[in-house]
Amino acid sequence: MSDAPYDFTIETLGPCKVKSPIQLSNVEGDFIANYVSDDDYVRYRLDAYIDQVVGPCKQSELLEKAGPRENIFFNPSHVHAAIVTCGGLCPGLNDVIRALVRCLWHRYGVRRITGIRFGFKGLLPEYGFETLPLTPELVDDCHKTGGSILGTSRGGGDRVVEIADAIEKLNLNMVFIIGGDGTQRGSLEIAEEIEKRGLKISVVGIPKTVDNDLSFIQKSFGFDTAVVKAAESVAAAHMEAHSQINGIGLVKLMGRESGFIATHTAIASHEANFVLIPEVPFELDGPKGFLHYLEDRLRKRHHAVIVVAEGAGQDLLEGEGGTDDSGNKKLADIGVFLRDKMAAYFKSIGMHINLKYIDPSYQIRSAPAAPIDSIYCERLGNNAVHAAMCGKTKLIIGLVHNKFVHLPIKVVTHKRNYVDPEGSLWRDCLDATSQPILMVNDKEAFLRNSLNRSKAKK
Amino acid sequence: MSDAPYDFTIETLGPCKVKSPIQLSNVEGDFIANYVSDDDYVRYRLDAYIDQVVGPCKQSELLEKAGPRENIFFNPSHVHAAIVTCGGLCPGLNDVIRALVRCLWHRYGVRRITGIRFGFKGLLPEYGFETLPLTPELVDDCHKTGGSILGTSRGGGDRVVEIADAIEKLNLNMVFIIGGDGTQRGSLEIAEEIEKRGLKISVVGIPKTVDNDLSFIQKSFGFDTAVVKAAESVAAAHMEAHSQINGIGLVKLMGRESGFIATHTAIASHEANFVLIPEVPFELDGPKGFLHYLEDRLRKRHHAVIVVAEGAGQDLLEGEGGTDDSGNKKLADIGVFLRDKMAAYFKSIGMHINLKYIDPSYQIRSAPAAPIDSIYCERLGNNAVHAAMCGKTKLIIGLVHNKFVHLPIKVVTHKRNYVDPEGSLWRDCLDATSQPILMVNDKEAFLRNSLNRSKAKK
Amino acid sequence: MSDAPYDFTIETLGPCKVKSPIQLSNVEGDFIANYVSDDDYVRYRLDAYIDQVVGPCKQSELLEKAGPRENIFFNPSHVHAAIVTCGGLCPGLNDVIRALVRCLWHRYGVRRITGIRFGFKGLLPEYGFETLPLTPELVDDCHKTGGSILGTSRGGGDRVVEIADAIEKLNLNMVFIIGGDGTQRGSLEIAEEIEKRGLKISVVGIPKTVDNDLSFIQKSFGFDTAVVKAAESVAAAHMEAHSQINGIGLVKLMGRESGFIATHTAIASHEANFVLIPEVPFELDGPKGFLHYLEDRLRKRHHAVIVVAEGAGQDLLEGEGGTDDSGNKKLADIGVFLRDKMAAYFKSIGMHINLKYIDPSYQIRSAPAAPIDSIYCERLGNNAVHAAMCGKTKLIIGLVHNKFVHLPIKVVTHKRNYVDPEGSLWRDCLDATSQPILMVNDKEAFLRNSLNRSKAKK
Amino acid sequence: MSDAPYDFTIETLGPCKVKSPIQLSNVEGDFIANYVSDDDYVRYRLDAYIDQVVGPCKQSELLEKAGPRENIFFNPSHVHAAIVTCGGLCPGLNDVIRALVRCLWHRYGVRRITGIRFGFKGLLPEYGFETLPLTPELVDDCHKTGGSILGTSRGGGDRVVEIADAIEKLNLNMVFIIGGDGTQRGSLEIAEEIEKRGLKISVVGIPKTVDNDLSFIQKSFGFDTAVVKAAESVAAAHMEAHSQINGIGLVKLMGRESGFIATHTAIASHEANFVLIPEVPFELDGPKGFLHYLEDRLRKRHHAVIVVAEGAGQDLLEGEGGTDDSGNKKLADIGVFLRDKMAAYFKSIGMHINLKYIDPSYQIRSAPAAPIDSIYCERLGNNAVHAAMCGKTKLIIGLVHNKFVHLPIKVVTHKRNYVDPEGSLWRDCLDATSQPILMVNDKEAFLRNSLNRSKAKK
Repeated sequence: MSDAPYDFTIETLGPCKVKSPIQLSNVEGDFIANYVSDDDYVRYRLDAYIDQVVGPCKQSELLEKAGPRENIFFNPSHVHAAIVTCGGLCPGLNDVIRALVRCLWHRYGVRRITGIRFGFKGLLPEYGFETLPLTPELVDDCHKTGGSILGTSRGGGDRVVEIADAIEKLNLNMVFIIGGDGTQRGSLEIAEEIEKRGLKISVVGIPKTVDNDLSFIQKSFGFDTAVVKAAESVAAAHMEAHSQINGIGLVKLMGRESGFIATHTAIASHEANFVLIPEVPFELDGPKGFLHYLEDRLRKRHHAVIVVAEGAGQDLLEGEGGTDDSGNKKLADIGVFLRDKMAAYFKSIGMHINLKYIDPSYQIRSAPAAPIDSIYCERLGNNAVHAAMCGKTKLIIGLVHNKFVHLPIKVVTHKRNYVDPEGSLWRDCLDATSQPILMVNDKEAFLRNSLNRSKAKK
Repeated sequence: MSDAPYDFTIETLGPCKVKSPIQLSNVEGDFIANYVSDDDYVRYRLDAYIDQVVGPCKQSELLEKAGPRENIFFNPSHVHAAIVTCGGLCPGLNDVIRALVRCLWHRYGVRRITGIRFGFKGLLPEYGFETLPLTPELVDDCHKTGGSILGTSRGGGDRVVEIADAIEKLNLNMVFIIGGDGTQRGSLEIAEEIEKRGLKISVVGIPKTVDNDLSFIQKSFGFDTAVVKAAESVAAAHMEAHSQINGIGLVKLMGRESGFIATHTAIASHEANFVLIPEVPFELDGPKGFLHYLEDRLRKRHHAVIVVAEGAGQDLLEGEGGTDDSGNKKLADIGVFLRDKMAAYFKSIGMHINLKYIDPSYQIRSAPAAPIDSIYCERLGNNAVHAAMCGKTKLIIGLVHNKFVHLPIKVVTHKRNYVDPEGSLWRDCLDATSQPILMVNDKEAFLRNSLNRSKAKK
Repeated sequence: MSDAPYDFTIETLGPCKVKSPIQLSNVEGDFIANYVSDDDYVRYRLDAYIDQVVGPCKQSELLEKAGPRENIFFNPSHVHAAIVTCGGLCPGLNDVIRALVRCLWHRYGVRRITGIRFGFKGLLPEYGFETLPLTPELVDDCHKTGGSILGTSRGGGDRVVEIADAIEKLNLNMVFIIGGDGTQRGSLEIAEEIEKRGLKISVVGIPKTVDNDLSFIQKSFGFDTAVVKAAESVAAAHMEAHSQINGIGLVKLMGRESGFIATHTAIASHEANFVLIPEVPFELDGPKGFLHYLEDRLRKRHHAVIVVAEGAGQDLLEGEGGTDDSGNKKLADIGVFLRDKMAAYFKSIGMHINLKYIDPSYQIRSAPAAPIDSIYCERLGNNAVHAAMCGKTKLIIGLVHNKFVHLPIKVVTHKRNYVDPEGSLWRDCLDATSQPILMVNDKEAFLRNSLNRSKAKK
Repeated sequence: MSDAPYDFTIETLGPCKVKSPIQLSNVEGDFIANYVSDDDYVRYRLDAYIDQVVGPCKQSELLEKAGPRENIFFNPSHVHAAIVTCGGLCPGLNDVIRALVRCLWHRYGVRRITGIRFGFKGLLPEYGFETLPLTPELVDDCHKTGGSILGTSRGGGDRVVEIADAIEKLNLNMVFIIGGDGTQRGSLEIAEEIEKRGLKISVVGIPKTVDNDLSFIQKSFGFDTAVVKAAESVAAAHMEAHSQINGIGLVKLMGRESGFIATHTAIASHEANFVLIPEVPFELDGPKGFLHYLEDRLRKRHHAVIVVAEGAGQDLLEGEGGTDDSGNKKLADIGVFLRDKMAAYFKSIGMHINLKYIDPSYQIRSAPAAPIDSIYCERLGNNAVHAAMCGKTKLIIGLVHNKFVHLPIKVVTHKRNYVDPEGSLWRDCLDATSQPILMVNDKEAFLRNSLNRSKAKK
């Protein structure tokens, strides 16, 4: 990765002059958890070269460690906090909500915590949703079910002025916004609008993307759970394919821009023969196209399992359908498209197939978090509260190199995380599937174009 | 952590002069996975201070990246590889075996792969176990079941000469040893004995500890699966405790030296009220002892769930029972001890309790790997093969800062990984349980002793 | 139900003159399992009226008990048995295959057991499938995975002469046919063709219908597993619906003619608000149509979960698509139809909804059997072998009043099993959903028509 | 079975003169569920002989069908109902509570429903437990968790006068008692005490026994769930045994008097090599004792899995420990006993074994109900309410020949249900394990004694 330097400096609302009530210590050896200092940083860059001398570390190149500080910005008894969940469902939403509420209430003694219903729309007057007062009792068991107890919706984040109005009217001091890329871009604009009005309100994001496509953070919450559930669908496809004459199991998995779920699932299950992801273009027709390789596989092994990420092969689809409420480009349905193309192809060559198409999307998104995700969500939530209490703002909580850190929203929403087609993850996936490295007919031309495209992007 | 500097240099059997057959590339943009260079390093230390100048990086302070090299040491057609699994069961053993076999066979074309039965004992003549020839067909579905298809056993790793004899007799070029702390110490001695004999044999370890107590590596395989299963036991204990008059659910979890499973499980499930781990001593009796706090909880809430790591409170137990076959100190059974102490205490104060004791150990250890662990095992196995083919030896494959790296066995077995009682993990666990920070009567004296103990250790 | 009397007499190939090798006993109290006598019958009719005198029981009105007989028809050392699985996947197929093989092999000493590949097509020359010799080793772990290790396909059962030719050519003495309604009708014709040729070949069916729509038998294998899996989909739909503004979760479940899966799933999960099954017609439009009731529910509760059996509301769909390979009428897709109708309706009234459509079909059909189904399959298989060894033919093994019995194929395929809209199962389902009893506008007219239709059927 | 005739007549509090509010119908063809008539009966005896003439059916020999009646005894608006759960946990308790509350509230309009806390102890003054008012809201999601939301305890059912006092004081009209054998015997005595006082109070039992040892009913709720969970433990034992040198997995399952769970689990999993149940005595020592057969198995196959029901082999254990709070004889622990005996035996013959003992008891009892059990519980609860509303009393709701019926408590508690060692279930279990039919040394003497014992019983 040849990243340009990022500015990781975190903004704050002002100096921290309130003594934290959470009763940790700064003494080593007293068995009391320690406060984190604002001087604790983590390097972002891990790569190193022998004999290299590294110049003086600038703050802007280092990541601030998350965690409770000895001095905080807000007086807990004055705090009114709000929580909102935006975008599609993702395993672990309730775990995060629960952690936020419990940490605010038990650790800091905050008693006014307000749940915003159904995403940003819960702050827009025309919907008329009432807010939901949150207490530890109310959230006690919510992590055992999927979904979001607050409700969620797409979009609305661009109506910055109205949302800032609502936040001001509610007299909030801190807003926790759980949502993806688009949502966090909205968060930033809202924070800027608030700042413009001279209000001291922390805006802290908890990044949510089941696709795991946020850059900088090592893994997004809910991702592990998604892979667990996706592996069940691939197992089903495998069973169907194995039990039929020329059985084909086609599973469409989430992954609008990045094929992480598809790739991980294929490695975990070892039952997919083809994985199609957005990062690796492919052609359908011709002697080196996907359909031909699939035919080949069927002739040799009589069954095949294909995993396709929803964002794969978008260049193959003509029609497009605008954008959804979150402003995301609507993808044409590659799953249905592939299904129909395969049916047509094998009909055209007179080969009988048994094609089963599985689209488990909502069953994955709505699942309760697996324990590993629950732990992650709990810790994200706690650290988000610690950050907000210190008046830090316009940041998200992330896990980088296994450390919880503060990341500026501006930096995080700047680029996406992709499966590197030449990296070790995709290499291990190809080993698991035995599929061809590239399914294109004129490889030379393809690589030339690919290079040009990537230049044009920069 | 104030670690002394470690020497991370990896030993090799000699220069790599064979062209790798795995057909990766060094070209960026050709969609072909790249070789890893021996000059690719990862920093071990992440902590950073502003304006700090870092002197020239020495190789010994950097971690070598794992992965396939362009040039390798062994000629694949001459390779005879062996795989052995040692110690107790751990979810993912079969996944690692499977990855080793498939990578050797499909990537490098190695055709002689031998499974050693039942740990190091499979190499000792008096047991008379035959070896098991391994092929991709044989291991194809083995990852779907728990256990080890090779069988495993404790101990035997100290019989260095006989094991080296057996390895020599089998004409092996590389030995993959999957096992824990004690096992890897044995691996090192075996590798040294082999070296003394002038043999060119790679010894590569894959670290296995369900307790997650190996230092340097960020997480051991099987750990996530263990937490998933352990959380089921805590849920059962919670149900029992809730449904009875003064119901107490006591769950003993694995964790001889480190309480990671107990701590993670408590955070994941949020249903434990007390977590007892080796890292945090506690007293049973007296007004600030565990039993009193438990009584308190029962009087207020009428039920309680306790999670105890098997290595917790060992100072409270008199009798000890020597060592097991692996040379590990045998722990007295804290679960049964606590159960009996609680029963006696509440009888003595005339309080009726309903105590249910759950010890899920084998149900956890024998579980098949959860998908996340399957992926991890697959990648560990692949990287172990790449290292061995390059003639690297006396190393284990580890995951550090989310990168697969080579770690010298000598360094890894040097110290253990502990839950830091003053770190964020334990802090989040205390938040999840609401238990007292310390359950000791004379805190001053305790802390003085604790300080002395920790000084004495150094 | 006012059933006409059925003739339950079982046909046999001839007198049983061979002493069974299975070494059971006829002595009570010797702890050795007892043979079943051909005089052991079970009443089919359970209804009783006080003071009613029941005339002499005719054999034709009684059900013959399944189980091992002291004397059998075939000499086990001469037996060549074949097993074939037909139609769609169903949890438990492999369990049945496994039980057949093990009982033939271990209990009776049969050594020639042949698996027919991919349904009846495996017996048709143009497909050219080789048969698969079956042994206990080969089937040992097959019950742990879903699907059918033999493969399956639809149709072909009407090519009676060719199939009989193939059976004759293979020198089979007994054929075990695992399949549904249509398959068993084929089995009967094949058995008759065989009989016409003067061959002594037992044809024994194991009834397979995941829909549970075979009459006489109390439950078909795989049904319980299907409900377990279906309940997971309903839970997902519920989570999605709850977490969205006017969230609607629509789940299509299997059930071509009968709504058993939908009904049981709704009672089990208690999360469905509407269950639509083939047995209870409904209208979409009008003030008492489904859409109006759904709108009502949304206005009051803001979310709704709908479970629809695939055969529901077929009268509402215009286009039809002929028949599938099994000769089953192809159903138009009620799930997609309803989804589109709902979208159009709520658009037309300007009400924003969030509709998530879940079709878990293949994930249900391909699941491995839950333990309860495994037990059932095991016992079906054993009893099928016992029946075939006695030369009984043209029968299926069924569970009636919790007893395993022999049922003539002719009788079983004569009618289907339906959810009785006025019985206790549907009553309990309505209690679980709180949906209206009938969603039709002109109830009087509807009931008149309904009455006429049911008259016409008779 | 040569049962003496039972009197199945159900007692009632008086004539039913109140029109039921539940709005069913008696018209066939109107799509409205039908009332059940008091003249609807089901035969208990299914066995039939050809040409047998059956004399006039007496009411006392027939089972009354459960379900809603057109006329009921109680005026719903006057009803005060109570629910109590007794004895150990069992999957499905909350499902039954939920169904009772919902049917009372929604179907009949009853508004006073009281939960008794912690079993009969909740009615005894010295415990001072407050009652819990129950509403549909409160029970809405309770079926998703295991345990009992009311709490449960053993014993207390013999304190008939005090319990009747408490019932009288609460002004109850109907009491639903969920509990086992001992509990229902208590229910009967309580009902008789109430009757003696001239009070019109329905006492309706819902039989609960995870062991499935209640006679007459075909299966108790929670049993299927128990088998599902038990199969997981056997799978773990199998993995451990397979992966060790002379690995032995020993699993203790529930089953005080009857081995149904052990037997079903062994058939479902096919991984047990020995199943030991109370119904089939065995000897440990000698050439035909269990230990010898086990040694044999280890010498041949090197691993073994043993499933033992807690009530098995009680004659082998000397010490006994009185009775528990429910008045059940306390069993000595056969699991620990066997574990120690095996260890000693193999030590004595110098054979190294690896023995893993798994006791999953509470993890099974506390599990939430599997969907099939949820359905069963729902229907048991509904039918219990229908019975109570009609003033029927001293009965339990049972499932017999797949019909829900009323059974007099007196009859049901009269004998237990056992695994018949000569029946088809045990036969299929022996086929699954391949264990010897009898593990006794002097078979002749054993059978003589066995015969005498069984005579003495009669």
